[in-house]
Amino acid sequence: MSGVAPVLITLGDPAGIGPELVARAHLAGELHDAMVVGDPAVMARGLRACGAATTAGPRLIHPLDAVAQAARAAGLAHGAPASAPPWATLGQVDAPVWEALAWGAVDARCGAYAALCLQAAVGLARLGQGRAIVTAPIHKESLAAAGLPYPGHTEMLQAWANPGGTPPDVRMMLANDELRVVLVTIHQSLRSAIEAITFERVLQTIVITHAALRAWGLDQPRLSVAGLNPHAGEGGLFGREEVEVIAPAVAAARSQGIVVDGPHPPDTVFMRARHTPQRPGACDAVVAMTHDHGLIPVKYLGLDQGVNITLGLPFVRTSPDHGTAFDIAGLGQADPRSFLAALAMARRLSPRA
Amino acid sequence: MSGVAPVLITLGDPAGIGPELVARAHLAGELHDAMVVGDPAVMARGLRACGAATTAGPRLIHPLDAVAQAARAAGLAHGAPASAPPWATLGQVDAPVWEALAWGAVDARCGAYAALCLQAAVGLARLGQGRAIVTAPIHKESLAAAGLPYPGHTEMLQAWANPGGTPPDVRMMLANDELRVVLVTIHQSLRSAIEAITFERVLQTIVITHAALRAWGLDQPRLSVAGLNPHAGEGGLFGREEVEVIAPAVAAARSQGIVVDGPHPPDTVFMRARHTPQRPGACDAVVAMTHDHGLIPVKYLGLDQGVNITLGLPFVRTSPDHGTAFDIAGLGQADPRSFLAALAMARRLSPRA
Repeated sequence: MSGVAPVLITLGDPAGIGPELVARAHLAGELHDAMVVGDPAVMARGLRACGAATTAGPRLIHPLDAVAQAARAAGLAHGAPASAPPWATLGQVDAPVWEALAWGAVDARCGAYAALCLQAAVGLARLGQGRAIVTAPIHKESLAAAGLPYPGHTEMLQAWANPGGTPPDVRMMLANDELRVVLVTIHQSLRSAIEAITFERVLQTIVITHAALRAWGLDQPRLSVAGLNPHAGEGGLFGREEVEVIAPAVAAARSQGIVVDGPHPPDTVFMRARHTPQRPGACDAVVAMTHDHGLIPVKYLGLDQGVNITLGLPFVRTSPDHGTAFDIAGLGQADPRSFLAALAMARRLSPRA
Repeated sequence: MSGVAPVLITLGDPAGIGPELVARAHLAGELHDAMVVGDPAVMARGLRACGAATTAGPRLIHPLDAVAQAARAAGLAHGAPASAPPWATLGQVDAPVWEALAWGAVDARCGAYAALCLQAAVGLARLGQGRAIVTAPIHKESLAAAGLPYPGHTEMLQAWANPGGTPPDVRMMLANDELRVVLVTIHQSLRSAIEAITFERVLQTIVITHAALRAWGLDQPRLSVAGLNPHAGEGGLFGREEVEVIAPAVAAARSQGIVVDGPHPPDTVFMRARHTPQRPGACDAVVAMTHDHGLIPVKYLGLDQGVNITLGLPFVRTSPDHGTAFDIAGLGQADPRSFLAALAMARRLSPRA
């Protein structure tokens, strides 16, 4: 272990399945090179949900200690950051309160705490005190109840990855054994997504995807770009976005030396990109214009091994592609496969020295 | 055979893979209860492409004879229809011309001929002289070159299914072994598709799908409706179409006694609907708002066995879910699996007496 920064794990929402997913990974021996950023009482909830002893949990650092450690490493004064966000106080909860917390309920304290842990993990990762971050699911409503102005992980990571500087331009990749998809637009109405598909945004998505695949060791990644309209617009007959926006962005990326083709008809590009043991896919990743064009094929064969990867950050970050599953939280029934896949992906994508 | 109307087969575009697909089906013994509506010279092209003798083709009726037969059956005067469309003349081509025709090229005569054969088949089917119609692929540009004002089969079928009366309201279903999907909108820009998703259109799609599945023998079909926006609009946060249009249409269908749920998030509804040997799907068909939401999952596992079924016509009509494949037409290399699946589906869905 010495000299190798650990994979950082956040427990996510304390009332969701996050703590038990992390406990399952620990009990399976998968956290040997990891460090959990979180409260011991929340970790203990997860271990208890899995029927395990709470005394032999994974290596853990309290979020406030993580903040202090990051500050020390940065050569700053020991202690909390200069301008502590409001949720830093709301998220500091005593152990007895965590122990008594109801499973599966929206709670402002849970949202604040999950945000605090993520912020601490980002601080460590930025300073090289972590190889990568793997996040357990958080709950959007608990975040909102805590006054967080972010709908999810991606937006918080973007906001905190470069404090004081320009927020990095990030994109969501969903990956499983068969398919890697990167999304040009995500959490907005389809109507507004169409407006958000600009030359710059499509080009930047291609550039970010190319850079990420290169960083992961693919010398010359091959990208395919999906169109927006049926039949990729059928030469302008079924919409002009391909002609006016997407094809020019593909051409601009190509002039930068990126190997990329398209725009292709959305209904066949994913099928052609699919990697199977019998047949390699036509490309290394597909750039999709909308949330559901991209996620329908990734999820079609089942959610078990899907991984969400944030591209464009100065560190590796992965997560399972499911939510907090409040309906089964605390029962020890949560399927850890997507979380384990996220952990394996984080290891694969992060430098080991 | 006596007393049982044949399955009618059209050869599609003479320059495409249609004739050889039909030849393959014939050579595999799959056309025993079928009748090809087409020119013997065009059929012979397909047989030759497959390296087969042209003297032992399938049972065949010339489109003009089919028109005459339909007219006789309708008690009308023997001969061509009263107002022959312009393509009726253009599509009448001598055998030597067909024999010399280039494969894989756009040709107005091919478009006119394909339309004429379809019209003849529709005439027979309407009069009970055919159990069902299975159509080989046509080429949109050849149709346009012939002056046909229709972008494809679906629109021609709708125009000709009830001459002199109201055109039936039809919908496209794509089906394979795992999934049945019916589309609310098809060949138009995504932007205009969003405008076309009205309460009436969604409700009518549900009603047509329900009626079709009932006609196919499912006593109480279960339908699921996909939303339009990410997360089915997340309660109005990512678009209001679910709240204002789709959910009311689902409620209206339910009040008519139809078993239907949704709107569901598009990215997971198809995965849940997927039938596998290990797990039955959550419903009998999914109603999808857009061309690509519906076709991405149907095509994701490969095109081989996908079948296109037109719902809402007064007869059964199926087709393969691929095009004319001009790049390989005439080489005898075309994969007949989707065409054979379309034939099997037509038999399964059409009354045998």
